[in-house]
Amino acid sequence: MTLSLERERFVETMREQAEIGATEGGGLHRLALSDEDKEIRDWFRAQLDALGLEVRIDEFGNMFGRREGIDPDADPVLVGSHLDSQPYGGIYDGALGMIAPLELLRTLEEEGLETRHPIEIVNWTNEEGSRFQPAMQGSGVWIDELDLETEYETTDENGVTVREELERIGYLGEEPAEPGEYEAYFELHIEQGPYLELEGADVGVVTGVVGFYWGATTFFGEADHSGPTPMHYRSDALVAAADVITGVRRIPGSLGDRTVGTVGYVDVEPNSINIVPDEVTITWGFRDPSDEIVDEAKARALAEVETAAEREGVGYESEKRMRSESVDFADRCIEAVQTSADDLGYDSMQLYSGAGHDAAHMSKVMDTSMVFAVSEEGKSHSEEEYTSWDDCYAAANTLANAVVRVAGLEE
Amino acid sequence: MTLSLERERFVETMREQAEIGATEGGGLHRLALSDEDKEIRDWFRAQLDALGLEVRIDEFGNMFGRREGIDPDADPVLVGSHLDSQPYGGIYDGALGMIAPLELLRTLEEEGLETRHPIEIVNWTNEEGSRFQPAMQGSGVWIDELDLETEYETTDENGVTVREELERIGYLGEEPAEPGEYEAYFELHIEQGPYLELEGADVGVVTGVVGFYWGATTFFGEADHSGPTPMHYRSDALVAAADVITGVRRIPGSLGDRTVGTVGYVDVEPNSINIVPDEVTITWGFRDPSDEIVDEAKARALAEVETAAEREGVGYESEKRMRSESVDFADRCIEAVQTSADDLGYDSMQLYSGAGHDAAHMSKVMDTSMVFAVSEEGKSHSEEEYTSWDDCYAAANTLANAVVRVAGLEE
Repeated sequence: MTLSLERERFVETMREQAEIGATEGGGLHRLALSDEDKEIRDWFRAQLDALGLEVRIDEFGNMFGRREGIDPDADPVLVGSHLDSQPYGGIYDGALGMIAPLELLRTLEEEGLETRHPIEIVNWTNEEGSRFQPAMQGSGVWIDELDLETEYETTDENGVTVREELERIGYLGEEPAEPGEYEAYFELHIEQGPYLELEGADVGVVTGVVGFYWGATTFFGEADHSGPTPMHYRSDALVAAADVITGVRRIPGSLGDRTVGTVGYVDVEPNSINIVPDEVTITWGFRDPSDEIVDEAKARALAEVETAAEREGVGYESEKRMRSESVDFADRCIEAVQTSADDLGYDSMQLYSGAGHDAAHMSKVMDTSMVFAVSEEGKSHSEEEYTSWDDCYAAANTLANAVVRVAGLEE
Repeated sequence: MTLSLERERFVETMREQAEIGATEGGGLHRLALSDEDKEIRDWFRAQLDALGLEVRIDEFGNMFGRREGIDPDADPVLVGSHLDSQPYGGIYDGALGMIAPLELLRTLEEEGLETRHPIEIVNWTNEEGSRFQPAMQGSGVWIDELDLETEYETTDENGVTVREELERIGYLGEEPAEPGEYEAYFELHIEQGPYLELEGADVGVVTGVVGFYWGATTFFGEADHSGPTPMHYRSDALVAAADVITGVRRIPGSLGDRTVGTVGYVDVEPNSINIVPDEVTITWGFRDPSDEIVDEAKARALAEVETAAEREGVGYESEKRMRSESVDFADRCIEAVQTSADDLGYDSMQLYSGAGHDAAHMSKVMDTSMVFAVSEEGKSHSEEEYTSWDDCYAAANTLANAVVRVAGLEE
């Protein structure tokens, strides 16, 4: 039996969620633990309540809704994503992965269908990592890769802690943030890259997640008046940083066809038209399906940092911000997604995820795979992010069938 | 007759002014038209009042104190600088050029000396141009190079206007901001460069001011998730900006031994570790004693902007921020400074100023020259700015004697 979600209600619900934290530019500004996050969480809980599901909030604000299965000994299949967004992000990133399984649960309920395993839907706290770092914080705490007390104390740029905000918005739950026994995890997300569109695929079957390294370097030069200071007297922290920006652009091209490298953040002190910069911080990062390539890219960036600092006569300090090993998903879950796509008649493509996802955390504690929806022009983390309703629907149906395939639909 | 300022009181007064707006790092944070600027202005006016001078405030807040001469037909000699500072700047930049002529007037008063020409001391509003742009705003309005009404409406980063702040701090005067007849203008300033120290000179005789061009360029790329977006899919505004930063560092070396070029300011949007930057603005500027070289440097920078934008596939807009032609000071004023230094037995060096000064504005309406004090390691616009009291005193004495030489000391 192949499930079909009700397309009209699914699209309607996607539009409904997009009203909470909507931006004038047609996107979302729904930062983790903000007022908008509280509003979408309350709305989402109301949807789960309406289905009669048991709702639990854990001590890190992760939200679970459980639909029982008929076998009391079977472990639940977990499915979900996140409701928070990037600053001025799009309406699909995260939300699509929450509305699709919501629609699955509505469909099972309406059609009176039972599964052998329970199904749990989950909304992970702070996936985006833009207001509070690191990203994927809620799932990281849940699998014990991140320490609960440490993450409680992380602050936003105004010094407000995660714990304070969880309390303020009413999502500091009591249930321990830790996994019980689970059968599998599935997550639907937009691709955030162009490969599905380039291939003409309807849906992506995700086989793993690339590894990545994020670092930051601060160069320390000398602040001088930009007029009377001869060029050979300068130690310009910004010039050294520019060398590294150029280097990071160049390094992937010499390593692999899936390697990417980015400098996304720059802070310049004193940042005045008339003063040679004396302190410049940049972040830089690399990703690749191969951890060896990630490590090699990092080594080449550090070599570039050293050379740039020497060339300009400035000091520097580099620090690691994050390292995530590449992940290979479980064959049985990949197959569940692939078979679902095939049965539904969708053209599919197997690919690695270039972005990190909560699924990468889940894969450390249970069998996992993901479904990707087409991202037009690969845009994401911006208001221009776009996935057609056709593509949203194809991915949602694929996810729904993969979940019930593993959860065991009783016919 | 050679005047000698009273060294102890001069140093004492330099220390006294440095207490207003003092930073923990031993510098000054006394931004134009701030509370600290009001405080130093009030203090300075009290010093002029104590000498019985006639004090005038013009409609742009420029402050004048006049000591009459004995010839009723002789035009006044103007001498001054500025009391405002850079953000976390040094205690000499500007202030030394105000305290030295104050000590000259005190000395004339105490010793009962008369000059044929009146002497006027002036504090120019907003020389630094860091809180409100452009720099040298008060003197620019005074010589009618800048429009009074336009400059009234310039705003700081909080949207507060110059006019509002002048009114708030009580320095919106009624006298028209325009020059009457003047005999000459002298200004003492720290060199803000290393040439005097390298030469082992006690004092600098300034023959002119280099020309400069300031521009700004914004690159427009595409905001993409830094993970799943392949390198060849990106239009990274920051990478294009980095090429220009590198280019501006390189251009002076192919043009002249006094040419300098600087990128001092960078703004990155969205400035997130995880997003390819889509909008990056940089400022860039060049200076040289030759206006032809300044224009050539600007042309090469614009060529670099175009090439960088094409290389990365991004759009751009460039705009002119400021152009100041190079200035040659008046021979008679240069000679007055040179002769004073010689008479006082100081080792002197003639040089161009690499920084803009109110004196460059004055040179358009009257004969002008400047005295430079040694800047240790050429540091300025920073708390590390330093001039020994010996060097401050040598420059102050040179200024005092140059002024009375032209004002005509009655012996």
